[in-house]
Amino acid sequence: MARVLTPRAEDFPRWYQDLIAKAELADNGPVRGTMVIRPTAYAIWERMVSDMDSRIKAAGAENAYFPLFIPESYLKREAEHVEGFSPELAVVTHGGGKQLAEPIVVRPTSETVIGEFMAKWVDSYRDLPLLLNQWANVVRWEMRPRIFLRTSEFLWQEGHTAHASFEDAKAYTLKIHHEVYERHMRDLLAIPVVVGRKTDRERFAGATSTYTLEAMTGDGKALQMGTSHELGQNFARAFEIFFSSDSGTRELAWTTSWGTSTRMLGGLIMCHGDDNGLRLPPLLAPTQAVVTVVKTGVEDAARSLYEDLVAAGVRAKLDDRVDTAFGRRAVDAELKGIPVRVEVGPRDIAAGNVTLVRRTDGSKTPVSIGEAVGAVTAALEADQKGLYEEALSRREARTVDVATLDEALEAAASGWARIPWSAVGVEGEALANQSAISVRCL
Amino acid sequence: MARVLTPRAEDFPRWYQDLIAKAELADNGPVRGTMVIRPTAYAIWERMVSDMDSRIKAAGAENAYFPLFIPESYLKREAEHVEGFSPELAVVTHGGGKQLAEPIVVRPTSETVIGEFMAKWVDSYRDLPLLLNQWANVVRWEMRPRIFLRTSEFLWQEGHTAHASFEDAKAYTLKIHHEVYERHMRDLLAIPVVVGRKTDRERFAGATSTYTLEAMTGDGKALQMGTSHELGQNFARAFEIFFSSDSGTRELAWTTSWGTSTRMLGGLIMCHGDDNGLRLPPLLAPTQAVVTVVKTGVEDAARSLYEDLVAAGVRAKLDDRVDTAFGRRAVDAELKGIPVRVEVGPRDIAAGNVTLVRRTDGSKTPVSIGEAVGAVTAALEADQKGLYEEALSRREARTVDVATLDEALEAAASGWARIPWSAVGVEGEALANQSAISVRCL
Ligand SMILES: [Zn+2]
Ligand SMILES: [Zn+2]
Repeated sequence: MARVLTPRAEDFPRWYQDLIAKAELADNGPVRGTMVIRPTAYAIWERMVSDMDSRIKAAGAENAYFPLFIPESYLKREAEHVEGFSPELAVVTHGGGKQLAEPIVVRPTSETVIGEFMAKWVDSYRDLPLLLNQWANVVRWEMRPRIFLRTSEFLWQEGHTAHASFEDAKAYTLKIHHEVYERHMRDLLAIPVVVGRKTDRERFAGATSTYTLEAMTGDGKALQMGTSHELGQNFARAFEIFFSSDSGTRELAWTTSWGTSTRMLGGLIMCHGDDNGLRLPPLLAPTQAVVTVVKTGVEDAARSLYEDLVAAGVRAKLDDRVDTAFGRRAVDAELKGIPVRVEVGPRDIAAGNVTLVRRTDGSKTPVSIGEAVGAVTAALEADQKGLYEEALSRREARTVDVATLDEALEAAASGWARIPWSAVGVEGEALANQSAISVRCL
Repeated sequence: MARVLTPRAEDFPRWYQDLIAKAELADNGPVRGTMVIRPTAYAIWERMVSDMDSRIKAAGAENAYFPLFIPESYLKREAEHVEGFSPELAVVTHGGGKQLAEPIVVRPTSETVIGEFMAKWVDSYRDLPLLLNQWANVVRWEMRPRIFLRTSEFLWQEGHTAHASFEDAKAYTLKIHHEVYERHMRDLLAIPVVVGRKTDRERFAGATSTYTLEAMTGDGKALQMGTSHELGQNFARAFEIFFSSDSGTRELAWTTSWGTSTRMLGGLIMCHGDDNGLRLPPLLAPTQAVVTVVKTGVEDAARSLYEDLVAAGVRAKLDDRVDTAFGRRAVDAELKGIPVRVEVGPRDIAAGNVTLVRRTDGSKTPVSIGEAVGAVTAALEADQKGLYEEALSRREARTVDVATLDEALEAAASGWARIPWSAVGVEGEALANQSAISVRCL
């Protein structure tokens, strides 16, 4: 069979780009660095949002919406930020047909506006904790764009919370990090993540602690899937988020922030994709099973099986486009990562069978028509676990325990190195950075 | 009791503004014309989105996401549009720290980009109908902003579809208009809408037919809650959306577009609000019932009732803030439109009762503790219908059938006039417009 994608081993970035185009996940937008998220990828994103949103609400946060536009002066309030974002900003200078008196920035995050409003809404300790989350688009100008991983506009959620004490803020950061992010990635995305703290060097400007979740991609690299920050009282000080305490004193709040984005779609592809295309964890797959009419004559049997699957709660599709070559339709389903294909052909049907094809391992198994629904649901359940375990095994195989920085640098060429921080230290970290190796997680 | 809001009869626009501030629904953003949607209003919007999104998917459309940024040149493709939008545009001239070679427009709609991609994605009649929808923020510079009704940035959904025939496009427009929009407004928002076609004068530029849904506000005016457009082949011609037909000929597609926005939140307030605040249809209310501890001593009874309500599927809250005056808490619950309050006080409890207070009519009824859950669910069901019927009666009472344009102009001073189009005509319409009266719906 002609190869559909550049193999991963040959050129991983190229494979990634090919896959996104051929699986019809996304296109480049007309303005450089922007993307069009096509229906298949957007449906995956919707499932991510839905799962994460329930978890965020279960953690007590409420959603709100803050404006896209921010006065330029706002970004000057928190000095550390301007330096972080300045070259990344898109600036609106004209509105309503006229030049604006003050330029407006398209939000790179809503942090500054949320800080401003938190200060208005928080008055007494009774108003705390104030737990806010926002789902929105943000813009950070990107010189070297890569779809899903680095785009000038992306979709994300940003949580911002204010608390009466350091302990409460810290506990909430960890709650989000473990109960929302880690479980979402493990249970829905089937991605094992290493959860830990960033070094001072890699920490977010303004944070006292930054926590990260790092996934290993198919080529043994690390991809940051989300971060949570304890901001101490730094942020509250910049935005004057004060509250009157239980005993009547005026206190500065303790705040946190945390975010994940459409970058998770990139992580998903890089973690589970193979040389034939995407592989999707069944819980996340918009289409879990496709019933394929191999050639005409078995449409009724196929439709009846498709209906049984839908009745059993499977997100199924019927593919009866018999005027398109069977092989081409199979390649397309593989590219798009549909977990299970049920091939219905005249010869199989004559023998009372259909063929169950699993995307994870490519296995093809004949099953009797009567047992097909059960076989599909069993395969879906097994694949959700299987993909997680495969990713975990790969990570374990590619992570070595080392004792010295030299060994770590060597190991990092093909995977990850686990090394005591005492053997690296701040100087070792700087040295490693020179070799384009970073200390991802403590 | 001190009056909380400006009465509607005194100053309707002022009442609207007061209500939004005091019910903590939204604030003005730091850039003029933008808004901060606070958690209560955002939770209502989320319920609208969720209901509408299910209906849109049931109608066969898929969600996708197109970029916020559009090259300025795109808006020149469809000449009629530039004229329509030009003074409404926000223009980005700087990105990545530099002046841009070509200015970028912040999308006032994604129509032009979607047209461009439809042309790429549509090849043969097999690709049709192509049914796309997008949930996103858009920007149209607003000189006279009013929260939810007219803001420079708002949230909306825009559907864009391409079809192989005029009939199919027309049928789909009407399907969206009736099965998605009208039912959403009737069944969830409890708002009766007049559904009809716009006159040529009020029609969307580029459309061959524009359908509208008009609600009557509390002061007898009309508010457009959504529109759907048949675009004929005009749009396809501008974007070169061609397809090869069944018989091999090259044909122009027929397209539609349709949209609703956060303006519906404004309609909801204006349709159901009263002089004490918001009134929310129970199906839409983030909190359907609040169990209020009148004074300390009955917390256990209140909590137990609250838990029974939650177990019965009611979105309930417990208000045990006994250190805040009871009256103030009651006013706050009224302002926010919580459909049912269950007041739990020591005297009532001693008699085995609680008091059921309904927001729609202000009625207060003692009910035995054992029957409280049933009474709450019955009240919620009755109120969903009751609000609809109340709005319908008001509309009927304020709509008069007239025969001449003069009579219509007189009637429009306090409500709506229903008049045969033959008695108005194009000239009559122009005349009416001079008196700030518009022909809303045919
Ligand atoms: Zn954990
Ligand atoms: Zn209808």
